[in-house]
Amino acid sequence: MDTLDAFAASIPPLDGNAMDAARQRQNRLTKPPGSLGRLEEIAVAVAGMTGVARPSLARAAVVVAAADHGVAARGVSAYPREVTRQMVANFLAGGAAISALARNAGARVIVADFGVAGEGIAHPDLVDARQGEGTADFLDGPAMSVEIALAAIAAGAAIVERERVAGLDVICTGEMGIGNTTSAAALTAAFTGAPPEVVTGHGTGVEGAAFAHKVRVVEMGLARHVESGLAPIEVLARLGGFEIAGLAGVILAAAANRVPVVLDGYITTAAALAAVAIAPGAREYLIASHRSVEPGHRTALTALGLDPLLDFRLRLGEGSGAALALPLLRAATAVHNEMATFEEAGVSET
Amino acid sequence: MDTLDAFAASIPPLDGNAMDAARQRQNRLTKPPGSLGRLEEIAVAVAGMTGVARPSLARAAVVVAAADHGVAARGVSAYPREVTRQMVANFLAGGAAISALARNAGARVIVADFGVAGEGIAHPDLVDARQGEGTADFLDGPAMSVEIALAAIAAGAAIVERERVAGLDVICTGEMGIGNTTSAAALTAAFTGAPPEVVTGHGTGVEGAAFAHKVRVVEMGLARHVESGLAPIEVLARLGGFEIAGLAGVILAAAANRVPVVLDGYITTAAALAAVAIAPGAREYLIASHRSVEPGHRTALTALGLDPLLDFRLRLGEGSGAALALPLLRAATAVHNEMATFEEAGVSET
Repeated sequence: MDTLDAFAASIPPLDGNAMDAARQRQNRLTKPPGSLGRLEEIAVAVAGMTGVARPSLARAAVVVAAADHGVAARGVSAYPREVTRQMVANFLAGGAAISALARNAGARVIVADFGVAGEGIAHPDLVDARQGEGTADFLDGPAMSVEIALAAIAAGAAIVERERVAGLDVICTGEMGIGNTTSAAALTAAFTGAPPEVVTGHGTGVEGAAFAHKVRVVEMGLARHVESGLAPIEVLARLGGFEIAGLAGVILAAAANRVPVVLDGYITTAAALAAVAIAPGAREYLIASHRSVEPGHRTALTALGLDPLLDFRLRLGEGSGAALALPLLRAATAVHNEMATFEEAGVSET
Repeated sequence: MDTLDAFAASIPPLDGNAMDAARQRQNRLTKPPGSLGRLEEIAVAVAGMTGVARPSLARAAVVVAAADHGVAARGVSAYPREVTRQMVANFLAGGAAISALARNAGARVIVADFGVAGEGIAHPDLVDARQGEGTADFLDGPAMSVEIALAAIAAGAAIVERERVAGLDVICTGEMGIGNTTSAAALTAAFTGAPPEVVTGHGTGVEGAAFAHKVRVVEMGLARHVESGLAPIEVLARLGGFEIAGLAGVILAAAANRVPVVLDGYITTAAALAAVAIAPGAREYLIASHRSVEPGHRTALTALGLDPLLDFRLRLGEGSGAALALPLLRAATAVHNEMATFEEAGVSET
């Protein structure tokens, strides 16, 4: 647990001086004060995260963490488990939604295998962060051991460290894993106390009796694993996924390095719940890109106190919403850094 | 009025074949059907507008139409009238919010003087579309004659024709004009029937007694000018602005040429109300970028049946919201055009 305590201790608070300087600058730019609404708030928040009064978000990466879930064997997904592996190949070939969205946004894509079922995938661009061939079914026992959860967190953190060497101003979170909305629902219920029927959604398309069954699986998982006084890492190990633990590591390491984190949908936000339970200071480095169709996503965002930028009825994952929001964040810094002040432009004030 | 009838007749309906082909393609892409929500809807809508099943939005322009308003003399704005002219200089120097946002979005900015007070502004990049030195005060008489309104519409349409020669896949609308939220409120009330107190907002920062006065000015303008059976061009001439009439021309010409139009805030949406009253078919070419803080903007968007993409509490104008939304629209076409199909990627379906 030393690693986690070290993380919690290493996350700095927001830089109040940078935020004050950013606010002052916003009020000197050639526009009525406050007239750019959320764009102004984003610029000030990013100044606080980065500690830079005029921050850049130019160098962006999307981490797409992939892994399989033992609970998928319980029939909680509309898609077969092979799709996780097939989609990893699609990410690497540049044919997935996140591929197109990241290109559109000018962000590089890091595909990381945290434990896809079957043999390891050989590809020069794939990050090997494998913790096994998919988690165990959480109805049978813990999805993974605490040791493995810590290893997955460390592997996620290592991705951030490597990307920082390449240059990293902002990191977008993404994932792939057939069955992982079930794990996200169980984690969200465990971390927020919300009932299973509120936080369980239709995932990629589970309807009718299959949906009722999915709710029941979440209920059984909670009944089996959640007890009072459980450490956050225990909750994550028992009900999470390798990719979710890995993303918690990405979030913790980004926060420790003052790198803003853009959350995607339900799964990445469940990872954020785990990260913030482990290290509450990580909360300040989170930006919610969108509110997904998954009902539990709203629960998780509310628990984190986050107000998403977009409501586009997305339910894909992969980091699609995070990449979609990236140009909005860059618009905020472009306005902040590039606009003329009243003095510079010779424009009259009220 | 022949020009207007010609416009109305020249606007084609959406291309149903292109939309069907776009829908079919969306359902073959490697994602659960419908999982990209609004991004899928945007791609299909743009296919219908452009008549192209896999449309591009690469070549984008923002038209920033500027003009002064006689009604500004009634103390309806927090800023002095000179600011219109000063901000035109700021647009041309590249220091305004729209300058930064258009650069961020990869769109060119066309600054057009539709009638800024004082002498004409000499600048090689400024489009001369001047219809006078600001409109007349609509409390004293019509803001402009019908002939001038038609000339402003023609000047706006001419901008679209010129930009089409340069290459134009999508056009964003923007404006600058101290006092123009008052004109937009009067037009919105006239075109939708909503009461003045509902459609009048705080503009760039009018509060307290000055705000109550602004509502009263809108009421008096409506009482003086609106009568039953008035042609839309008469409403526009009596209560509008040169830049608003110009933007109506931009919208009509874009629709006639199958070019999608991205609306910005309250003023550009009031121009759209006028354009759609003149030529109802123009409605199909409109995309609402955001919902502004101005309460009447909601009224106008509802009347047009438009659901805005963003709610960022913007109240600046200039085309800022439209430029902000452009990367979202391009994300929709990037996904649509670049993603692999299930067959291409070898991914299993449900």
